[in-house]
Amino acid sequence: MDDLFIKQEELTKLVNKIRPAAKKGRMASYIPALKESNPNDFGCVIYNGTEIIEAGDTDVLFTMQSSSKILSLALALMDQGEDTIFSKVGMEPTGNPFNTVQALEEENPSKPLNPMINAGALVVTSLLAGDTGEEKISRLLGFIRELTGNKTIQVCEKTAASEKKNANLNRSLCYFMKSHGILTGDVETILDAYIRQCSILVSCEDLARIGSIIGNNGKNHKNQKSIIPAHITKIITTFMITCGMYNASGSFAMKAGIPTKSGVSGALLSGLKDGTGIGVYSPPLDSKGNSAAGVPFLEKISDDYNLSIFSTYRNS
Amino acid sequence: MDDLFIKQEELTKLVNKIRPAAKKGRMASYIPALKESNPNDFGCVIYNGTEIIEAGDTDVLFTMQSSSKILSLALALMDQGEDTIFSKVGMEPTGNPFNTVQALEEENPSKPLNPMINAGALVVTSLLAGDTGEEKISRLLGFIRELTGNKTIQVCEKTAASEKKNANLNRSLCYFMKSHGILTGDVETILDAYIRQCSILVSCEDLARIGSIIGNNGKNHKNQKSIIPAHITKIITTFMITCGMYNASGSFAMKAGIPTKSGVSGALLSGLKDGTGIGVYSPPLDSKGNSAAGVPFLEKISDDYNLSIFSTYRNS
Amino acid sequence: MDDLFIKQEELTKLVNKIRPAAKKGRMASYIPALKESNPNDFGCVIYNGTEIIEAGDTDVLFTMQSSSKILSLALALMDQGEDTIFSKVGMEPTGNPFNTVQALEEENPSKPLNPMINAGALVVTSLLAGDTGEEKISRLLGFIRELTGNKTIQVCEKTAASEKKNANLNRSLCYFMKSHGILTGDVETILDAYIRQCSILVSCEDLARIGSIIGNNGKNHKNQKSIIPAHITKIITTFMITCGMYNASGSFAMKAGIPTKSGVSGALLSGLKDGTGIGVYSPPLDSKGNSAAGVPFLEKISDDYNLSIFSTYRNS
Amino acid sequence: MDDLFIKQEELTKLVNKIRPAAKKGRMASYIPALKESNPNDFGCVIYNGTEIIEAGDTDVLFTMQSSSKILSLALALMDQGEDTIFSKVGMEPTGNPFNTVQALEEENPSKPLNPMINAGALVVTSLLAGDTGEEKISRLLGFIRELTGNKTIQVCEKTAASEKKNANLNRSLCYFMKSHGILTGDVETILDAYIRQCSILVSCEDLARIGSIIGNNGKNHKNQKSIIPAHITKIITTFMITCGMYNASGSFAMKAGIPTKSGVSGALLSGLKDGTGIGVYSPPLDSKGNSAAGVPFLEKISDDYNLSIFSTYRNS
Repeated sequence: MDDLFIKQEELTKLVNKIRPAAKKGRMASYIPALKESNPNDFGCVIYNGTEIIEAGDTDVLFTMQSSSKILSLALALMDQGEDTIFSKVGMEPTGNPFNTVQALEEENPSKPLNPMINAGALVVTSLLAGDTGEEKISRLLGFIRELTGNKTIQVCEKTAASEKKNANLNRSLCYFMKSHGILTGDVETILDAYIRQCSILVSCEDLARIGSIIGNNGKNHKNQKSIIPAHITKIITTFMITCGMYNASGSFAMKAGIPTKSGVSGALLSGLKDGTGIGVYSPPLDSKGNSAAGVPFLEKISDDYNLSIFSTYRNS
Repeated sequence: MDDLFIKQEELTKLVNKIRPAAKKGRMASYIPALKESNPNDFGCVIYNGTEIIEAGDTDVLFTMQSSSKILSLALALMDQGEDTIFSKVGMEPTGNPFNTVQALEEENPSKPLNPMINAGALVVTSLLAGDTGEEKISRLLGFIRELTGNKTIQVCEKTAASEKKNANLNRSLCYFMKSHGILTGDVETILDAYIRQCSILVSCEDLARIGSIIGNNGKNHKNQKSIIPAHITKIITTFMITCGMYNASGSFAMKAGIPTKSGVSGALLSGLKDGTGIGVYSPPLDSKGNSAAGVPFLEKISDDYNLSIFSTYRNS
Repeated sequence: MDDLFIKQEELTKLVNKIRPAAKKGRMASYIPALKESNPNDFGCVIYNGTEIIEAGDTDVLFTMQSSSKILSLALALMDQGEDTIFSKVGMEPTGNPFNTVQALEEENPSKPLNPMINAGALVVTSLLAGDTGEEKISRLLGFIRELTGNKTIQVCEKTAASEKKNANLNRSLCYFMKSHGILTGDVETILDAYIRQCSILVSCEDLARIGSIIGNNGKNHKNQKSIIPAHITKIITTFMITCGMYNASGSFAMKAGIPTKSGVSGALLSGLKDGTGIGVYSPPLDSKGNSAAGVPFLEKISDDYNLSIFSTYRNS
Repeated sequence: MDDLFIKQEELTKLVNKIRPAAKKGRMASYIPALKESNPNDFGCVIYNGTEIIEAGDTDVLFTMQSSSKILSLALALMDQGEDTIFSKVGMEPTGNPFNTVQALEEENPSKPLNPMINAGALVVTSLLAGDTGEEKISRLLGFIRELTGNKTIQVCEKTAASEKKNANLNRSLCYFMKSHGILTGDVETILDAYIRQCSILVSCEDLARIGSIIGNNGKNHKNQKSIIPAHITKIITTFMITCGMYNASGSFAMKAGIPTKSGVSGALLSGLKDGTGIGVYSPPLDSKGNSAAGVPFLEKISDDYNLSIFSTYRNS
């Protein structure tokens, strides 16, 4: 294994430098429980299978929210195969917001454009193996515990309960897709599973460990055992670049070029192609719903250390 | 320099294998001159700065069409800087077709979503330095001649004249943007420059040479002189992945993961991150407007030789 | 009271002449129970408070479907007043289909464009006075029995049950509006009330009697007692013209000019401004969802007897 | 002929009462020449073929703007017949603004939804008989002179020149429609004719006289000679109700119910079905582009004198 691309003291300096950018953001308002997060928290962990460094408030736990979408997608692809999944959800990025209904209506059939918008992610969750929502979530938790090596990972039931009370837009998306035959099964069960998936509690280290496996072609660094098959790792990496940051994915690809999935909790899960993972957490959000300080942090670190997958290979 | 990732006989075999896929495509209908191309032509050249191999009908010349958009963008960025360009055109991919007006109307201000859709490309061309359309095109030709090392590259005036007669949708886009202050200057001059840019005649080898420089961080392989600054090379590479294949960019990123820009002439210009360029030409188009045989060719070659930028590094 | 504008034998002749137009239509497919109607049925009743004539299959009962929307609107306006109703639903016609979600997303706030599209009608039903869905429907049934003088009018529970199984698109609209604060209350209760409202069983005579009261400024012909206040009658008459025929309202206003509300059962409820009501029933539908024979029937009768409100007064 | 529905002193009182509503409006900004109008002007003329009364600033001349659209439509229908016109432009109202491009893109074929939005009106003007734009406008002027009995009516060349400089959105609409085969002929010629049509100078009396003929079934009041055939009068009256007030047509139909076409100069041209015409002028506009004082004036007069075509007949 290589050394990390960045040294501890450099990371600390960078975190301190970018931290004030959080003040330009606003706390997520549509899920009451998220408003209780501390807007001043900013944490980052970087891990490459050998070395791990961290800076800032890395002891905080937070919910994955949309950053869970790449993991449910990976598991659903492992469960059902690409043909089944992509018969129900598309592969194209969209300039529309994450919760749009409109795009569904324009498409024919009314297939969500991609699995990173809410409509698509709801379909993906519905396709996880498991006869009940409980079983689906239990399998997803097992998968995430394997990826992180953290057996204590759990759903935050309080956040789930709070989201459940504000789920009408997602419920509307579900019934729309059900009326068009894209979604099958009981909507409340799917919605419950989806909300609990979003409410999985993690730390920056957990995110960094997941990212490092994605970057390592889906393999455990220690024993090189494949946890996610290589072709599925490639698929989720692609979606992280093309659709990972809501309708700011294009500009983030341009400015950072790091495969990343964000969540409205302020989570950012990144996997570099050399097997390094980065987990960032800072709750205030920018106008597109991404972490207001986390985004410029990743853009800056990419720029300083040449991390973009759209740059030439760092070693060449 | 390394050896090419593929051997001559393997390339010949692959070209022969994929060639029949062209039969599923249809010739571009909206530009009369394009219908005169030979639907049976299929050519591919691969070049990495040292070695060059080719297979199929590589002696045919064809117009660049939309594959020129990344070069006008590169030159406009060199001329005006990022701030000016991206104040007039966005960075986000879109699920809409390349010629959409709708997205312009929904945005505020009415900025094209990205420089790869027609509206955005028209703005970019208008921003090329040069007091006249003639001067803009003359500079662009000079730039392409430098990239290809081919001093004979010219505009196909016959195709330009044919496109000029069918330019009302692009003309409509121009006047729409002009009414919203996004486009300034004389529309007919801009349109004329844009059409002549699309009508630049190239060969597969020209495309491969351009792609190899993009893949080589913008530098000439022989003398490592920078023709396109590295940060601009990164920008155009990003657009090739996120928006390079019209509204099939997402699925192409997934299946091939090769930074590529297509054109309705059947051209495909690819630049791998190790400095290898690929030029493909096969005129029949699929339903999204991309080369019907060229797309599966690049998907197959990526799969066989692990070329996707979303896979882990080949050498690691 | 005046004589009817048409004689019995003329009506019979006209019904026989237009009846074959039903063959161009198709039975409604999205509510299974509606497919069981007899596609050959065609009935018409005309009533002006004094005289009543009929032709064709006038003994058939059918569900009101969307023709009920003007009655729930009238009752909701009587219950809550204009300010409350129009704070939740707009007054503008739309070129979009009746079940569109898109328009909701574009509006700000997400108010349905008018009470004749499904989204708007669902809001209206939710605003009917009554603590329970049962109470709302019971009051609406009472209102319709008063308008028709027919005390036997009931909900067709079989059709309601069938619609209930296919209500996901309307359910999606409800949750969308609930998430935007336009709809309040329990969605299943509202949906149940709405479906039962659509499933109210009537005859052509019932429709003609309702139309005649609407045309008579809301007053009972016998005793001139006001059942619907004049200003509310004016409102629903306006909606019948501007939005009564889904996204064919404009062409129907042009060609017939008779205030009419259609339903996907094949029902057409018309009220002429001289106090004459027309009830038509013929189940096969045209591409816009209106009765395929009923529409040309009303256009022809309007043309032959100068019934359009956009013509000069017949007597002048 | 009957007496006017309103007496001189009542009209004067009403004009004085409503006049201050203009202060809530804003002067049209997109045509520089319109900004030179006096925002305090408010005039009204009412004419029924026998009697004429007026109040306010009725000596001012102003350009017709969109109020001309019903006259070019009437003449085009007389020139080409309904089948030709409605093969190129639809009959449906729309909730979208008057200058929308979007609706064109969604329709198939890209036919404007109705002749009252700009796209539709441009098509209508292009279909006026006449080999040149000059000839089309000369015929339209002749038609308007006949309707008003005012032989001095002319185009305001200054306003036309000003509009011509700000015509890029309409130019965009023309080229869009030309690219889809909906519009044929030279765009600049059509645009010039359309702009000159909009720039025809009239007075409130001219508008009232035109409205009175529309209300009189297209016939001259003095000699009952038909200037506009009855079936065409019916068509334009229908459009005045369903699409006459931009995307406030629905609420105006509800509140006033008077067939009216507005223009961004602040003009309002109304024709009551008993042969009374009303011309109103007050330049400040509301957010939908209609006269900010003229709209409540017509709503009030309709309410006070029961003028809505959706009320029962006044005399019955």
